[in-house]
Amino acid sequence: MELSKQELEYPQKLLSYMDGFLISKTMFTACELGVFDLLENGEALSSKAVAERLGTSADGMDRLLTACVGLQLLQVKGHQGEVLYSNTDLSQIYLTKASPRTLYYSMAYYSQTIYHCFAFLSDAVREGKNQYERAFGISPQELFESLYRSEEEMLKFMQLMNSIWNICGKAVVMAFDLSIFTNIIDLGGCTGAIAKECNSTYPQSRVTIYDLPKVLEMTRKHFVPPDERRIAFHEGDFFKDPIPDADLYILARIIHDWTEDKCLKLLSRVNKACKPGSGVLLIEALLYEDRSGPVTAQLYSLNMLVQTEGKERMASEYISLLESAGFKDVQVQRTGKIYDVILGRK
Amino acid sequence: MELSKQELEYPQKLLSYMDGFLISKTMFTACELGVFDLLENGEALSSKAVAERLGTSADGMDRLLTACVGLQLLQVKGHQGEVLYSNTDLSQIYLTKASPRTLYYSMAYYSQTIYHCFAFLSDAVREGKNQYERAFGISPQELFESLYRSEEEMLKFMQLMNSIWNICGKAVVMAFDLSIFTNIIDLGGCTGAIAKECNSTYPQSRVTIYDLPKVLEMTRKHFVPPDERRIAFHEGDFFKDPIPDADLYILARIIHDWTEDKCLKLLSRVNKACKPGSGVLLIEALLYEDRSGPVTAQLYSLNMLVQTEGKERMASEYISLLESAGFKDVQVQRTGKIYDVILGRK
Repeated sequence: MELSKQELEYPQKLLSYMDGFLISKTMFTACELGVFDLLENGEALSSKAVAERLGTSADGMDRLLTACVGLQLLQVKGHQGEVLYSNTDLSQIYLTKASPRTLYYSMAYYSQTIYHCFAFLSDAVREGKNQYERAFGISPQELFESLYRSEEEMLKFMQLMNSIWNICGKAVVMAFDLSIFTNIIDLGGCTGAIAKECNSTYPQSRVTIYDLPKVLEMTRKHFVPPDERRIAFHEGDFFKDPIPDADLYILARIIHDWTEDKCLKLLSRVNKACKPGSGVLLIEALLYEDRSGPVTAQLYSLNMLVQTEGKERMASEYISLLESAGFKDVQVQRTGKIYDVILGRK
Repeated sequence: MELSKQELEYPQKLLSYMDGFLISKTMFTACELGVFDLLENGEALSSKAVAERLGTSADGMDRLLTACVGLQLLQVKGHQGEVLYSNTDLSQIYLTKASPRTLYYSMAYYSQTIYHCFAFLSDAVREGKNQYERAFGISPQELFESLYRSEEEMLKFMQLMNSIWNICGKAVVMAFDLSIFTNIIDLGGCTGAIAKECNSTYPQSRVTIYDLPKVLEMTRKHFVPPDERRIAFHEGDFFKDPIPDADLYILARIIHDWTEDKCLKLLSRVNKACKPGSGVLLIEALLYEDRSGPVTAQLYSLNMLVQTEGKERMASEYISLLESAGFKDVQVQRTGKIYDVILGRK
């Protein structure tokens, strides 16, 4: 890479990388303190009024709101000598809790869990393993026993899983024409976000969410209304329990959690459950074949290191896993968003 | 702000803010583990070789190096079927410890101290005060007693202070023609980075670094060679001890540490030490008058909140402080870099 004279004398890119966490935490903090929710009704308030309503210091809130303006998360107008703050379209749509497209819960999880895990990135690289013990004092155990260590943690994790499909869900279910599949099982389907996208895109589809009993209990309680007739539930552990018949099995961000051995075991179990012609759909953030990018997938692979036993992979690695498990005609579709899609058939 | 349809459907900006801390920590970790220093001699190594030499896991290092490629901090080439990594110009110049323009020590301090403080940004905004107690278990005390709580911490802080002038130092000493000032005192001059820039830009200048005795001990030991004849030292606490005669007093990133009262006290003491015609030069990250930016200064003001008792200010606030302290003819120069400059005269 040739460096321009300007970049050589003043490394703007490095400075922006340095400030990255300041920006993340500024946005997260404004979410967590309830700034965007307070302004959701379209009100424009002074920083003093925001501070009073949210019970914070006036000075701290003033600085926070000012920084949010610089980040285009808030806008200002003058009114009788006072500066008034209101949401931008961006924060209104994506940072308020009640918005149907909210990323609020991603922000909260990133802020409270992943930020803390990443404090131990050096240790993770040194040791080649996740840092739940250092970060949260949780002794090594089954991955999802750590993630689901309390009902509260489980809900936070499920909300994280749910919220990214608000912006990527449509693209991943449309990446292939899935209308030939009617009876679909979403393995590790969690909150049903992908199930809902399937139902809305493919009117003839019926989706069963397959997940651990305690997960489905939360799903029924918080995410899927009881009158939703096109979504069914199946309790089970996909490593151990029977996997029912289906035309298509979806595994969205499942394979990236696990070691090669476990991936192969899981995909072989899925293959065994398939009839000839049945499909398997993997939804993952794919690395380029030369692994030069995308940066997001590279960063997520480090996140998998600090948090799980898995990693992000190249399309060719998923193809190889699927073929080893007995699938054929494997096709890959990039979506241009974070998550890409791989379809295999038995 | 009008939102494009594309941004409305896929909020790239918010996603990049979310990933900000992943990027920061990836760069910091590669610095801290010694990746760029290992490759400083121009060698191109496989990730396995880097892992072996640095004593880390092969898998973790492989992911880290891959992410550094995506961030353009490393470059790759193939060699006999192996992928080999080497420094880019950017990392060679700014991320290796021994480079004269290194930002390594900024990275280390950001990673080890500021990242940790920012975990408590919500608390800082709520309480309106710094978070050294939560972050480091240090009970509230004089600011610099916290920052200088051990010789090791003091050195890390001094290295941070030093390194930013590698990229901003020339611009700030050249913002005004300082050739009319010969006898210069840098109050809180720390490592002498600004003193050296003055000497190199203004051949007739002689600069005295005024700082706490224990700071100057470190400065002599680590930063200013004994044969440097154009830099002198003066031990003192600028809030209490006499301030000697000078033509120009520099305060670089000093005023932003303190409350209004302390700023005014300090600047009044400086004014009293001035002869008519003497100058005072403030070097600070200035907020725009409408406080809509620059983002860096807004973020730094939050950093001042979590770490100090001060804040970043607008030019008009510095002008007002200087005038209240008895200075006149106050002029402001923006540099286009992080730090700007304000000159006042008695």
